[in-house]
Amino acid sequence: MSDTLRRADGARVLADLNALRSFGTYKTGVHRPTFSEAHRQSLDWLAARHPDAQLTAEIDGIGNVLGTSTKPGPKLLAGSHLESQNYAGWLDGPLGVVYALEAARVLNPDPSIAGAVEVASWCDEEGHFGAFLGSRSYVGDVSEADIDAARDRSSPRTMREALAEMGLAGRPRLQAERGRHIGYLEAHIEQGDTLEQSDLKVGVVTSIVGIWQYRIIFTGEQNHAGTTRMAVRKDAGLALAKFCLAIDARFPAACGPRTVWTTGRITLDPGAPSIIPGQAEMLFQIRDDDPAVIDRLEELLRELASQASAAGPCQVAVERIRTGAPAMMDGAFQDAIEAASSALAGGRSLRMPSGAGHDAQVLATIMPAGMLFVPSIGGISHHWTENTSDADIVTGADVFVDTCRRLLAGAAR
Amino acid sequence: MSDTLRRADGARVLADLNALRSFGTYKTGVHRPTFSEAHRQSLDWLAARHPDAQLTAEIDGIGNVLGTSTKPGPKLLAGSHLESQNYAGWLDGPLGVVYALEAARVLNPDPSIAGAVEVASWCDEEGHFGAFLGSRSYVGDVSEADIDAARDRSSPRTMREALAEMGLAGRPRLQAERGRHIGYLEAHIEQGDTLEQSDLKVGVVTSIVGIWQYRIIFTGEQNHAGTTRMAVRKDAGLALAKFCLAIDARFPAACGPRTVWTTGRITLDPGAPSIIPGQAEMLFQIRDDDPAVIDRLEELLRELASQASAAGPCQVAVERIRTGAPAMMDGAFQDAIEAASSALAGGRSLRMPSGAGHDAQVLATIMPAGMLFVPSIGGISHHWTENTSDADIVTGADVFVDTCRRLLAGAAR
Repeated sequence: MSDTLRRADGARVLADLNALRSFGTYKTGVHRPTFSEAHRQSLDWLAARHPDAQLTAEIDGIGNVLGTSTKPGPKLLAGSHLESQNYAGWLDGPLGVVYALEAARVLNPDPSIAGAVEVASWCDEEGHFGAFLGSRSYVGDVSEADIDAARDRSSPRTMREALAEMGLAGRPRLQAERGRHIGYLEAHIEQGDTLEQSDLKVGVVTSIVGIWQYRIIFTGEQNHAGTTRMAVRKDAGLALAKFCLAIDARFPAACGPRTVWTTGRITLDPGAPSIIPGQAEMLFQIRDDDPAVIDRLEELLRELASQASAAGPCQVAVERIRTGAPAMMDGAFQDAIEAASSALAGGRSLRMPSGAGHDAQVLATIMPAGMLFVPSIGGISHHWTENTSDADIVTGADVFVDTCRRLLAGAAR
Repeated sequence: MSDTLRRADGARVLADLNALRSFGTYKTGVHRPTFSEAHRQSLDWLAARHPDAQLTAEIDGIGNVLGTSTKPGPKLLAGSHLESQNYAGWLDGPLGVVYALEAARVLNPDPSIAGAVEVASWCDEEGHFGAFLGSRSYVGDVSEADIDAARDRSSPRTMREALAEMGLAGRPRLQAERGRHIGYLEAHIEQGDTLEQSDLKVGVVTSIVGIWQYRIIFTGEQNHAGTTRMAVRKDAGLALAKFCLAIDARFPAACGPRTVWTTGRITLDPGAPSIIPGQAEMLFQIRDDDPAVIDRLEELLRELASQASAAGPCQVAVERIRTGAPAMMDGAFQDAIEAASSALAGGRSLRMPSGAGHDAQVLATIMPAGMLFVPSIGGISHHWTENTSDADIVTGADVFVDTCRRLLAGAAR
């Protein structure tokens, strides 16, 4: 066991990320949906790199790439994903996979390091076919019936058909061997501008927020837009607009310091230019890592709905359609990332929750988990202009490799 | 020429309306879209009734049914339409056709009446294939290319295919013979509750409102709903909701006594639950019969957009996509309806604009036109529960027949 720092090979990390960018290049980003030809190429590319890290790679029956080591000592699982959102950025996913690969390449062949890093690429984190299907399959949370039912959101094919096209039909799905890993570490771009705004280099993720989602339905009275006087209308769309402003006015005083809420979709029924909408619907989402805050906001939401219904002329109903418990990141993992940041990033790190979902929240259900963020230029995410400076990518890689070393060392002690 | 009142045969009018209800019955209303089998049956039924009114019926190449009289003297054109909105009411259209038929049956065979009523049923007033295609064809405002381009809004067939299925392909389209008619009279249910609320029996239509339509576009910044802090968001959907409330707050002080405005459709882009909408769009409509009021409101709309853009964080653009000049109804027609109402409806009539569009606005471009409304129970329209009491239907028929008599008498004098 060595107590000396280990660093990444920065040039190799950047070269690997650019190699992955060549699969499905779109402008400066990539278009690499799950089970596309570009995705297949990226999985094969990754599997071919595993021997450099003394790992044996396997692409399993759901498209996860998993590397196993025969080296004695503790094993740390690390990774992220290789598919992208449609026409999106080059780093969302690949950064975490290449960091994990780099840590394995640096630490696994080193006889002074006890144990090894095992690299994972989880399939479909971006949700083209479902929600975290790859990592959920690995922790035992996906049935064959789930796969039977899964369909591509943007093409008519089923997941079974896509797996067959990929040559993966009939392969076994690998599941976690309980007790094998000391935990799971994942790196990701921040997808926000907090680090950039404060000139920091590393985000030490404390938790991954839970997502609560609501369908809010406004019921008025459908009528003719020409013949119905303003005074007697029951316009469900106008009631919805008023409700959005009530949320905007009342939530800030009740929320936590990092709560976010979003109305992502609005539908008026029937949605014709000459008909007063008799019904309207909004999809509303709240994210926070503190369930107490969510409880308070949900109560407020229902209170606002009651007030609006009582005031009339439309009725407002709030229906919760998704409840996502936040995932807490392991304290020892946070300490290790922070220590590595002190050593290799001038201590320019910040503990922060993740507002976005990641495979780490799934792995956290069966083992200790941690996450490390690097800055996002302008906070841009899920868009092909997403980027991080090369210097920040290399600094992040150094911190990631050294965090792995510290975690393995801590487990071997 | 006779100066004595003429009345409708109320039982015959009600029987005819119920006979038409049997074509495409849906609950207490009808489902009789343009060029459906039920629609075809209703056209044939009407053509078969024309001889009772000493009219020769022709179904032309766009599905209009037109009756011509050989009786000497002035000719008054009267009618409405027979197709329905989907799953809608039994009276919207048929009432005006049956009133016209009844007037022709009462007045045309009467040798003491100079001139005749000619009955028209205009095809597709309800816009399954276009906008007022039948009446516009009659006034010379529809080209063969327009028909080539027309498609059924709710099925994949073209208008040409539908005409062929109806056996109408290749038939000539009848056009107005200029100078033949002293004008056009149409009856319709009110589609609002003004008459019912005041216990009145007849609406004397003064004008058919113009419809101005706008596309209002809000441009913000699309971003991740989990990682983007509330303080830095540029949420186009929230900007749209605020704009709706600004209209709601400012329009009442600037509008006319009968102006109506409606947001019929709202779209957030991309419309996903976890993405802050970067763009939002609303379809907004203003109706009034006074262009000065519309001008004032459009100016206010643009002022509100400028204010919202200046306040930020989103930009608001207003684009006018439809400009509909109001159609004024002829003064002599209004006087005739009012006089008939005094004689046969106890004077319980009210001069009022029509908030909905009707074929009369198309005919008004080439001849004097008038419209008569009967009460709508609860003001319900474009729904199968639409209805008018039998007594009000019969009173309206009496007033309609006598209005025709007065108009023919006035022209013959």
